[in-house]
Amino acid sequence: MIRVNEHYGLLRSSYLFSTIAKKIDEFQASHPGAHIIRLGIGDVTRALPPSIVAAFHHGVDEMGRDESFRGYGPEQGYGFLREAIAAGDYRSRGVDIEPEEVFISDGAKCDTGNFQELFSTTARVAVPDPVYPVYVDTNVMAGRSGPWADGRYQRLHYLQSTSANGYVPAPPTEEVDLIYLCFPNNPTGATATRDQLEAWVSYAREHRALILFDAAYEAFIRNDDIPHSIYEIAGAKEVAVEFRSFSKTAGFTGTRCAFTVVPRECAVYNEAGQKLALRDLWNRRHTTKFNGVSYPVQRAAAAVYTPEGSREVRGIIDYYLENARLIRERMQSLGYGCVGGYNSPYIWVETGTDSWAFFDRLLTEAQVVCTPGAGFGPCGEGHIRISAFNHRDRVLEALDRISRVLG
Amino acid sequence: MIRVNEHYGLLRSSYLFSTIAKKIDEFQASHPGAHIIRLGIGDVTRALPPSIVAAFHHGVDEMGRDESFRGYGPEQGYGFLREAIAAGDYRSRGVDIEPEEVFISDGAKCDTGNFQELFSTTARVAVPDPVYPVYVDTNVMAGRSGPWADGRYQRLHYLQSTSANGYVPAPPTEEVDLIYLCFPNNPTGATATRDQLEAWVSYAREHRALILFDAAYEAFIRNDDIPHSIYEIAGAKEVAVEFRSFSKTAGFTGTRCAFTVVPRECAVYNEAGQKLALRDLWNRRHTTKFNGVSYPVQRAAAAVYTPEGSREVRGIIDYYLENARLIRERMQSLGYGCVGGYNSPYIWVETGTDSWAFFDRLLTEAQVVCTPGAGFGPCGEGHIRISAFNHRDRVLEALDRISRVLG
Repeated sequence: MIRVNEHYGLLRSSYLFSTIAKKIDEFQASHPGAHIIRLGIGDVTRALPPSIVAAFHHGVDEMGRDESFRGYGPEQGYGFLREAIAAGDYRSRGVDIEPEEVFISDGAKCDTGNFQELFSTTARVAVPDPVYPVYVDTNVMAGRSGPWADGRYQRLHYLQSTSANGYVPAPPTEEVDLIYLCFPNNPTGATATRDQLEAWVSYAREHRALILFDAAYEAFIRNDDIPHSIYEIAGAKEVAVEFRSFSKTAGFTGTRCAFTVVPRECAVYNEAGQKLALRDLWNRRHTTKFNGVSYPVQRAAAAVYTPEGSREVRGIIDYYLENARLIRERMQSLGYGCVGGYNSPYIWVETGTDSWAFFDRLLTEAQVVCTPGAGFGPCGEGHIRISAFNHRDRVLEALDRISRVLG
Repeated sequence: MIRVNEHYGLLRSSYLFSTIAKKIDEFQASHPGAHIIRLGIGDVTRALPPSIVAAFHHGVDEMGRDESFRGYGPEQGYGFLREAIAAGDYRSRGVDIEPEEVFISDGAKCDTGNFQELFSTTARVAVPDPVYPVYVDTNVMAGRSGPWADGRYQRLHYLQSTSANGYVPAPPTEEVDLIYLCFPNNPTGATATRDQLEAWVSYAREHRALILFDAAYEAFIRNDDIPHSIYEIAGAKEVAVEFRSFSKTAGFTGTRCAFTVVPRECAVYNEAGQKLALRDLWNRRHTTKFNGVSYPVQRAAAAVYTPEGSREVRGIIDYYLENARLIRERMQSLGYGCVGGYNSPYIWVETGTDSWAFFDRLLTEAQVVCTPGAGFGPCGEGHIRISAFNHRDRVLEALDRISRVLG
């Protein structure tokens, strides 16, 4: 008899975005004339810029001629893209990452979800609270979570991110083995300073733990003193993997391309305590269960590193950052404490009340959709997330409506 | 301390294609003038056809304009493609599959590799011999293989595919829970008759086992009496998942699109023996660890189902099938027993000798590359695989050289 992976039975249904969608539908049905503005989901809204579209088309054209057709490519990605990333994202900031340490994939969600496969099911896992749910659910599926009780998985270690610590948790006093960090953070928009990251790298080195560093929003960083990469911290290569994505950087949420960096020095240990190269393990996993990213998509991604593509992409991020600044400053002027909005497309607003009630109020009175913080974990209660991914006129209209309701 | 998934230590290095590449490089280095013809790897060589290229471009254009831009799509794939598949691949053959039972992905390799996650690590797994290595390696990583000894993983059940059973194994007398089948087969090219598939479905129903049916080469079937889908067998929906791909059907090995069908009736059981819907579990896995296929790629795939795209794609497959027929008939005329080559792009040749020695002879004397059968498992010894994926003039030249050496 074929038996299920029983750990799936421990998963909790993810009601957050389906509940939001249901509430919007119900409100729209009872108010057919209402023009609802969505600042909820973290999805980009602006088109791929011209030089990326041109490279994408060129890749498609190559696939349409026998003499330039490409079949299976390297599972790890084409050299032209891995080299562009190593040079453009790392060497340009003084970090020495080799192309062979860069693994191209179809999404940071996939990579952050799959990476835990490489580790023992007994690994002690630390996740942020509030949290991107993929970190938690994939560890539940693998059997590392323990049962759910009192609003928590009993075997996970939650890194509480609250106004008390500026939404950047310090390393725990307990021993953990696998640590998920995300900066600029989703959902809070908080960024980590060099000192804060140094504390985490130091903890990981001391305990031979591994940091899975999600830098999907790194392109939104504008302040010079905030690290873009965990590898800007000395010693991080031995204890950290970094996930990045073209989704929010270049509008690839529907085009699909991302990458993961696993330095050669990065170590994991077997039962005998021997050190193994994590890069070799991920390479084995990646080549066995993945078959590479679409060739024209890799050509499109590589265009991000050309002078023109880079300028276009920066222009789009600047646009979203201006939205974010407008949102943050308006919410602050209305008396709400905020984090994020600078160096991040998300604004995490301290509402001080039940976050679903605040969501309902903005929906019904202002016809503006946000995301209730409680949906991201217990520490999200008393907060909402507002996303800067929308067109300027809609953001301004949403803010005027919010001012009328809350002002 | 971060500890490795110890099962990775049980993986055997995959030397097959790297050893072939090394032998080719060495021969070329010592014979710089030699013009080597490759009939080894199963990768397509002909360009994407015009109507698929046009749909691909159109999708890219949509991504380049704000008003038609697409961000995150449904993880399971867009309705337009799921509906085209349900109608074009299933209802057209009298099989009632709903669009909601079709999950779009970026590759059958990924899906056949990932699917085993849904099951208990104690599941007894049956794999063909010779075998597509992904079935084996992903179960090794998950801890279902047991140790390697005497040329076999001790906890896997091997379905021997030999000339004695026409390379189509019958169900075992032992009880197994998870069964990997692939028809038309890679590497043998053998196809399964309706009666043979009925025996497997009957076994699975009796034992409440699950069949993972890999139909990646289904488009090469031309004989009317050979089923294209496991669901053409009554009762299969309750016990079988089907994997298909656009890779070999439409030349998508470098473009990346595939799909998996999980019927609503398909069942799996928990420890208490209760029946669960496998579709719901795969949906949870797919939405948690995957973020959908690139939108322009899905548009390109949908063009396969238009009258023009369908005609173009059939023309390309006919071209490869003519290559396959030429290869099979030449090898038979030289006195070698063959399977495949009809209804399949692969020809599995009984060489009767050490398959690496035969590979070496073809490389050094005819400058033709094949794949030694021993690389696919013990039952592959005494065979080579020849692939029909190449240009006609090269295939003909390769056959003339082979005739001179072996004739």
